[in-house]
Amino acid sequence: MSDLILHEDPRSGNCYKIRLTAALLDLPLEVREYDILRGDTRTPEFLAKVNSNGRIPVLQVGNRFLPESNAACFYLGEGTGLVPADRFARADMLRWMFFEQYNHEPNIATLRFWLAYIGEANLTRQQRAQLPAKRIAGEDALALMDRHLADRDWFVGEAVTLADISLYAYTHIAEAGGFGLEDHHNICAWLARVASLPAYVAMT
Amino acid sequence: MSDLILHEDPRSGNCYKIRLTAALLDLPLEVREYDILRGDTRTPEFLAKVNSNGRIPVLQVGNRFLPESNAACFYLGEGTGLVPADRFARADMLRWMFFEQYNHEPNIATLRFWLAYIGEANLTRQQRAQLPAKRIAGEDALALMDRHLADRDWFVGEAVTLADISLYAYTHIAEAGGFGLEDHHNICAWLARVASLPAYVAMT
Repeated sequence: MSDLILHEDPRSGNCYKIRLTAALLDLPLEVREYDILRGDTRTPEFLAKVNSNGRIPVLQVGNRFLPESNAACFYLGEGTGLVPADRFARADMLRWMFFEQYNHEPNIATLRFWLAYIGEANLTRQQRAQLPAKRIAGEDALALMDRHLADRDWFVGEAVTLADISLYAYTHIAEAGGFGLEDHHNICAWLARVASLPAYVAMT
Repeated sequence: MSDLILHEDPRSGNCYKIRLTAALLDLPLEVREYDILRGDTRTPEFLAKVNSNGRIPVLQVGNRFLPESNAACFYLGEGTGLVPADRFARADMLRWMFFEQYNHEPNIATLRFWLAYIGEANLTRQQRAQLPAKRIAGEDALALMDRHLADRDWFVGEAVTLADISLYAYTHIAEAGGFGLEDHHNICAWLARVASLPAYVAMT
């Protein structure tokens, strides 16, 4: 699996997932940086060559391009200890990764982006109208995670999987979106568990 | 893979994905029906036993429960012709399934639900404020799909995969959310291709 290039913005948790997966697997990863705030991923060249959806991350494998952070993690992780060997557990890992993209990221990552990068004063009326619902949905996602971790160390099975990496990315920086983690003791213990994995790399 | 039970609301495209996958694979599937509008999936019993996230579909395999439609399809499809044997193609299939849950479903399925089931007059102020953005994002998702299908019959590789099934579910009923498909000729041809698969079952 040579010639891996990550097209990324280092401030993006979705990009960090892929860097963390590669680090845990000791895979070399070349990096191309883009500034999403400057519109680097909406240029005609980027849309034509890298991702027609105008988003990063994109994992380049040789001359093929793979968008969607969790799909890229799956590509890197398949056949390693980060993906369960058991069929049901493997699907259950994907279940948490779909949960992450549907219930977690659009709320927790989006509020971080809006509040920490765009700035509340600069939000559109439409964005402002969504703040309360996204706040509640993000809190619900964190509460569900905390309950799930009450009697286990990892999201699926007995060891770290891509489900943990996927959910870790925006959970460990959730406070930048105004989400308090201090009452979620199980999440806090799990975050520390991920951060103490051998070969762990921090986001910045 | 015996004892498969689908916990579903038959009006849900996410549930239909799993029924269509099972039909194409000739897998027997027992069905338990819930009415999401009546709150059947928010009861303490459902939350404790079936899905703590309060959502359907959930695929029950023996006494284990698997939420998230695309994860359930993956569980059923792994090792069959609906999941590519090639590693990159398999990840690329998941790429489209994550696209579906992030860019397609929250816009196209949600507008269908709001307009065809809740009714525009009954929407909250917050929901109403999101209509224009969801309309644009849904149109963008359909336009991207139509461009992708310009020079291929299926989303990944040379045959139908779970990516097609996942995207088909809410695309073929997008008009109920006010999305016109008539200008998307490639999508229309692809919809007809899916509907003519042997063992295809319709949604209702």
